[in-house]
Amino acid sequence: MGSSYGQVFKVTTYGESHGGAVGVVIDGCPARLPLGRELIQAQLDRRRPGTSRLVSPRQEADQVEILSGWQDGLTLGTPLSLLVRNQDARSHDYDELRSVYRPSHADYTYDAKYGLRAVSGGGRASARETIGRVAAGAVARQLLAHRWGVELVAWVTRIGEVTVDLDPATVAAEHVESLPDGAPNHVRCPDPAAAAAMVAAIEAARRDGDSIGGWVVGVARGVPAGWGEPVFDKLEAELAKAMLSLPACKGFEIGSGFAGATQRGSAHNDPFYHDGQRIRTRTNRSGGVQGGISNGEPIHFRLAFKPTATIRQPQETVTVTGESTVLAARGRHDPCVVPRAVPIVEAMTALVLADLALRQAARLGGGGGA
Amino acid sequence: MGSSYGQVFKVTTYGESHGGAVGVVIDGCPARLPLGRELIQAQLDRRRPGTSRLVSPRQEADQVEILSGWQDGLTLGTPLSLLVRNQDARSHDYDELRSVYRPSHADYTYDAKYGLRAVSGGGRASARETIGRVAAGAVARQLLAHRWGVELVAWVTRIGEVTVDLDPATVAAEHVESLPDGAPNHVRCPDPAAAAAMVAAIEAARRDGDSIGGWVVGVARGVPAGWGEPVFDKLEAELAKAMLSLPACKGFEIGSGFAGATQRGSAHNDPFYHDGQRIRTRTNRSGGVQGGISNGEPIHFRLAFKPTATIRQPQETVTVTGESTVLAARGRHDPCVVPRAVPIVEAMTALVLADLALRQAARLGGGGGA
Amino acid sequence: MGSSYGQVFKVTTYGESHGGAVGVVIDGCPARLPLGRELIQAQLDRRRPGTSRLVSPRQEADQVEILSGWQDGLTLGTPLSLLVRNQDARSHDYDELRSVYRPSHADYTYDAKYGLRAVSGGGRASARETIGRVAAGAVARQLLAHRWGVELVAWVTRIGEVTVDLDPATVAAEHVESLPDGAPNHVRCPDPAAAAAMVAAIEAARRDGDSIGGWVVGVARGVPAGWGEPVFDKLEAELAKAMLSLPACKGFEIGSGFAGATQRGSAHNDPFYHDGQRIRTRTNRSGGVQGGISNGEPIHFRLAFKPTATIRQPQETVTVTGESTVLAARGRHDPCVVPRAVPIVEAMTALVLADLALRQAARLGGGGGA
Amino acid sequence: MGSSYGQVFKVTTYGESHGGAVGVVIDGCPARLPLGRELIQAQLDRRRPGTSRLVSPRQEADQVEILSGWQDGLTLGTPLSLLVRNQDARSHDYDELRSVYRPSHADYTYDAKYGLRAVSGGGRASARETIGRVAAGAVARQLLAHRWGVELVAWVTRIGEVTVDLDPATVAAEHVESLPDGAPNHVRCPDPAAAAAMVAAIEAARRDGDSIGGWVVGVARGVPAGWGEPVFDKLEAELAKAMLSLPACKGFEIGSGFAGATQRGSAHNDPFYHDGQRIRTRTNRSGGVQGGISNGEPIHFRLAFKPTATIRQPQETVTVTGESTVLAARGRHDPCVVPRAVPIVEAMTALVLADLALRQAARLGGGGGA
Repeated sequence: MGSSYGQVFKVTTYGESHGGAVGVVIDGCPARLPLGRELIQAQLDRRRPGTSRLVSPRQEADQVEILSGWQDGLTLGTPLSLLVRNQDARSHDYDELRSVYRPSHADYTYDAKYGLRAVSGGGRASARETIGRVAAGAVARQLLAHRWGVELVAWVTRIGEVTVDLDPATVAAEHVESLPDGAPNHVRCPDPAAAAAMVAAIEAARRDGDSIGGWVVGVARGVPAGWGEPVFDKLEAELAKAMLSLPACKGFEIGSGFAGATQRGSAHNDPFYHDGQRIRTRTNRSGGVQGGISNGEPIHFRLAFKPTATIRQPQETVTVTGESTVLAARGRHDPCVVPRAVPIVEAMTALVLADLALRQAARLGGGGGA
Repeated sequence: MGSSYGQVFKVTTYGESHGGAVGVVIDGCPARLPLGRELIQAQLDRRRPGTSRLVSPRQEADQVEILSGWQDGLTLGTPLSLLVRNQDARSHDYDELRSVYRPSHADYTYDAKYGLRAVSGGGRASARETIGRVAAGAVARQLLAHRWGVELVAWVTRIGEVTVDLDPATVAAEHVESLPDGAPNHVRCPDPAAAAAMVAAIEAARRDGDSIGGWVVGVARGVPAGWGEPVFDKLEAELAKAMLSLPACKGFEIGSGFAGATQRGSAHNDPFYHDGQRIRTRTNRSGGVQGGISNGEPIHFRLAFKPTATIRQPQETVTVTGESTVLAARGRHDPCVVPRAVPIVEAMTALVLADLALRQAARLGGGGGA
Repeated sequence: MGSSYGQVFKVTTYGESHGGAVGVVIDGCPARLPLGRELIQAQLDRRRPGTSRLVSPRQEADQVEILSGWQDGLTLGTPLSLLVRNQDARSHDYDELRSVYRPSHADYTYDAKYGLRAVSGGGRASARETIGRVAAGAVARQLLAHRWGVELVAWVTRIGEVTVDLDPATVAAEHVESLPDGAPNHVRCPDPAAAAAMVAAIEAARRDGDSIGGWVVGVARGVPAGWGEPVFDKLEAELAKAMLSLPACKGFEIGSGFAGATQRGSAHNDPFYHDGQRIRTRTNRSGGVQGGISNGEPIHFRLAFKPTATIRQPQETVTVTGESTVLAARGRHDPCVVPRAVPIVEAMTALVLADLALRQAARLGGGGGA
Repeated sequence: MGSSYGQVFKVTTYGESHGGAVGVVIDGCPARLPLGRELIQAQLDRRRPGTSRLVSPRQEADQVEILSGWQDGLTLGTPLSLLVRNQDARSHDYDELRSVYRPSHADYTYDAKYGLRAVSGGGRASARETIGRVAAGAVARQLLAHRWGVELVAWVTRIGEVTVDLDPATVAAEHVESLPDGAPNHVRCPDPAAAAAMVAAIEAARRDGDSIGGWVVGVARGVPAGWGEPVFDKLEAELAKAMLSLPACKGFEIGSGFAGATQRGSAHNDPFYHDGQRIRTRTNRSGGVQGGISNGEPIHFRLAFKPTATIRQPQETVTVTGESTVLAARGRHDPCVVPRAVPIVEAMTALVLADLALRQAARLGGGGGA
């Protein structure tokens, strides 16, 4: 009981990395939303590994199937069930890990919690679990874009020691995905020079049999004022939960975040002004949220991802039966998951906002019938 | 619809700052838990303003009444209703604010969301809302201590530019509350020298008619391995949500947090070893959580609080009817809420852990009757 | 954890019969709903015992206080907290019952579940618990009437062997409350002759130191087509749950109910026809619901209430320590709760419909702000 | 948003009758429960149509696949995803129904609610939706049997005018499924003479191009005292909701039900006595539940199912565009769904009890780890 998210736009994911499938059921998506399979597939393709030297060479087709809730290009208002088969189940890569707890993985804690664990590929704790999130996020994103014109973008802002600071109000999605010459931007940092340095940092880590972490910034533009549910389900609280539920995420800050805590109020407050009919703020240290409710400014936040736990260097650990041992990972592993986190961060942002949008809509909705 | 937290240990708070009362209903607290009113009152007294020059001089008695769910020192298993009357309702302090949106407050967003707002004292967005959290947190804390021996401590680790780094494994609750000479530690930083510097920083902000923010560290010791619900309700995800739902909180990080993102995996991973019968980790960069589940090590995390929005310095803003204006707060205001946040952070930690503990207990519980 | 109802219009009740208070918190009521304290009090007065010979002579003032979520005659959109103090706590009436399990009461099962129970007055299993439902129901009813023009009426249709069959489409609320001569209709049966016979049946039961049960019919008129959430939260499923959660309720049927099961489909189906622009059905054996969704016809259903468990006649039972004994109730008791159930049934109907209305509204609601 | 049931043992179903698949995700099933695919398949086979002249001749293989949450015969504690492909999608049988609202079906209300509907086979309102319930119910049933020894049986007690009254304490599952000569008991009434008369009644309805309804009794034996969550989530309230959520169900009563409402309390109360160490009741008019909590006696209840809406006789109705018309169903249809409801009723009973069992377990569960 922890595989569902949302009160009105409600998703439930399932699936181990090496079982039959991973997937998601979405209950509460409004009817008559234009939706095509390719729209979901496009987001899954963005999270798929194997597209560059930077990431794991696994070939996962990850073709999504819409099992229900959909007819002739429109949602039916009934549950959408989205399924992706597992295909590349080389469990022999993992057999030696049955008896050893990998450091900073979830092997030990799953055993402690459940009394057993999926022995192959990390089971439910595998990054493959995020497929359900991305598929559902694609639907949420379509709802947000179609009904409210909301736009979501995330990008990498730090890898190891390489960092860059960009204005959340202006970064464009296409610069996250592509370099100026049209080549894929594998590291998903929209500053080309920083992106090149990040690629170098990741490759250095790989050469060393090591891994490396980083930061991601996310932004939602076009969110109307009024979304977010005080007091426990504030917009930033739901975002924080959504992001910290991602594998390897260790931190979340919104607006001025940790740095803002060192400012004086006179420097930190966002002055209001009238921009035509609209009330706006001259600065956005609030990150688009005040009192837990969106204020119409861009919502922007930053996340920390730790370095991948799986490394080829030998590490001290223990066996399940109580002996000390040394472990060195074999097989295929990403030295850095941060670039792949970008579409997942966008997906989680979409799930949070779609749910809060419909919760606000519940206050305003009119008559009985559609 | 955002005033409830928890799936099994479930709390619902209510109350504006200047209505009849604030309070909380707890549904799902197990029966036969030893509980006295004074135990709840003690935590409320810790959050109460007016106990030093550092904080607002309001006299809020904040006496809690247990309305239900309790008999002869034991919980009944039925809902506990905890009530605190509002007494110091000087709404004239606020009358001039009816027509002006205070910068970085929730006035504008409440109007945008609900179409009206409580005109006195910030309404539901007031810090007074946290009384319900602290009262419920006292019950959760008692459950955690009584059944599992869990200990919770939080403290201030930064005010403005004054910062101190302490070992989460060793900070004692008494040093948070008292200075070595037995005097109250108003700023709740367990390092006396840093505490003195923090007091000075807060007083400087007050003299300037300004405000100042800071950081809080929280730790939970004695949590057994196995708490936390993958994948959306991971322990750190629930903590992040709980903390970001606090007024003025802008950031959360667990374990190595943002800084850990800059490390290599070989330096960041926590090696396992056997400590007698128990599996432990040599370091704790994970912050006591792996794969969203507690691993038995201390859970530690850090929060950022922005400077208080209310300042005496004049600020640019707008009226509700569309004119530009300048606002300078009058009345009584805390220049820094960070020390008062400490018991609130502990309370939210207790609510998160009590709920996850009972969710895990649901897996293990035996027969039918009590 | 069972004291909350609703997904969007969400209520949480609390309170034992002899603790400090009973009450309810409503989270999710839309803002700017016109609401006065007297509107809630009027419904509480309808459920209050002590208004006739037919019912228990207890004097319970049951004055409701609105603690939060309300300002100047309008809801704020934040949680409404409604409180009723317990005043008439003659626990000595109940002291002898500490050691004996009353037959068909909840004494034994509460002990079995919680390991203890409130020793006075039935605790949470007392009919006094329904005060929270009625108070919240008054708010829900106001929302339904104000926004959608929905009208709710319930009445007694059977007491013991006295029964009457009335057309759900035409029974008027004033005939439930008043007899043709303007006197209070204590038994709440809108047929005066049947009402007189029901009064006689209740008084006969009282004379015999016994109790008597009956049936209640409820109807909701003006519900638009489209409310109800397939597949588990169908309109009739939510109604059934709400009604079977009432003390002493043993049965629920909607539309043709148990009798309809004996019909052929050709006789049972409701033919559709056009009534101007509107699609209607010529008969209403469906009870206003098809496929779990309202069809615009009156929703009508029937409930069974068992005879009150407390009787003055001696009964076989056991003590908590294992001896056989004989129990004869003393003190004040209703020989029949069915007339008092009428406002409670209406209240639960209101809670069900308000929640389903807002769940449907979530699909339709438009922009962000109010 | 109504396709989930349960708070701790939580199921979410999906699927239209003619889409890609129907299925269910179960979140909250404890780990290490012995579970085989064949155990789920056996229950699906019981609900499958096409096994006799009495029921629809459709050939639906309905083979279930376990996609996740399961390994080597044990549950993993993570979500179980159970999938059944749709295979026999003869949508041309339904094409003529696109433009006509079938009387007492959900065509009109789905259009009213969602603004569109699945045009083939009833979509989400089809009885095929119950496959997810039965699959999940098989898992719940295994949990109840394995951990608590609970036994569930349901049977047909009325078809049209043919009725039989059997003691809920003694009916055996094998007599529901098989006749004394070992032949399949197609009508699922454990009294052979009554069963034969019921078969005749169903065949008469079929010959007439008509349909027929009936009643089902359900019983749960071995439920320990203490399950059920006052006040809204009482055991009988959850059962009532679960049953009224079934297609065609129009009524629910527990214990003495509607008939008990006509009794005096002295005749209706269940006297307590000691049976060795155990407290029992001499009669069971309460139906195994007092105050919403199980008392250890068999839980027994009765349901009403209306006659199937689809009949071959011509009926008055309207088209979606507003003309009056006459409809006579073609294709394959059950004249009576009541026998097929039996395994579905058992499945829903299992879902209710498994969830309440784990909610009670949450109170009692001990340490952290498994």
